[in-house]
Amino acid sequence: MHQWKERTRPIRLERRFEFENYEATRNFLDELGQLCESQKRYPDISFGKTYANLSLASNNNEEIDSDDKQFASKIDQIFQEDN
Amino acid sequence: MHQWKERTRPIRLERRFEFENYEATRNFLDELGQLCESQKRYPDISFGKTYANLSLASNNNEEIDSDDKQFASKIDQIFQEDN
Repeated sequence: MHQWKERTRPIRLERRFEFENYEATRNFLDELGQLCESQKRYPDISFGKTYANLSLASNNNEEIDSDDKQFASKIDQIFQEDN
Repeated sequence: MHQWKERTRPIRLERRFEFENYEATRNFLDELGQLCESQKRYPDISFGKTYANLSLASNNNEEIDSDDKQFASKIDQIFQEDN
């Protein structure tokens, strides 16, 4: 969770993830996609061959709350399990 | 192919794709991922719930060539088949 940066306008959390190869990037994105669907939350994601940048808008648009942090932690967990 | 815009610095093709829902977005990205692997070309992709922006660097870094256009057309084809 400490690797996420809090940004404003709009209020959001951002983190960059890096991967060994395209397969690892795709595996991460696949698992992330499943998480997003289960949570009905859809961050903005930019990715290339070996990276993904996530931008996670706050749930309430006023501040990063515990729901947002919990969602970010679940994403970290996906990354850690794969890497 | 006519919906792609040619941009400079670096020379690239860009196109925005829009989708009905998250499932359609994910289906497109899955098929695109397979194409990328088969061609060993990895565009920069940004996406959210119902959109994907693609940025396709030119193969030779000097101009958009027939290889680049062919790759873009294949991406269009994936989009058309799904939508």
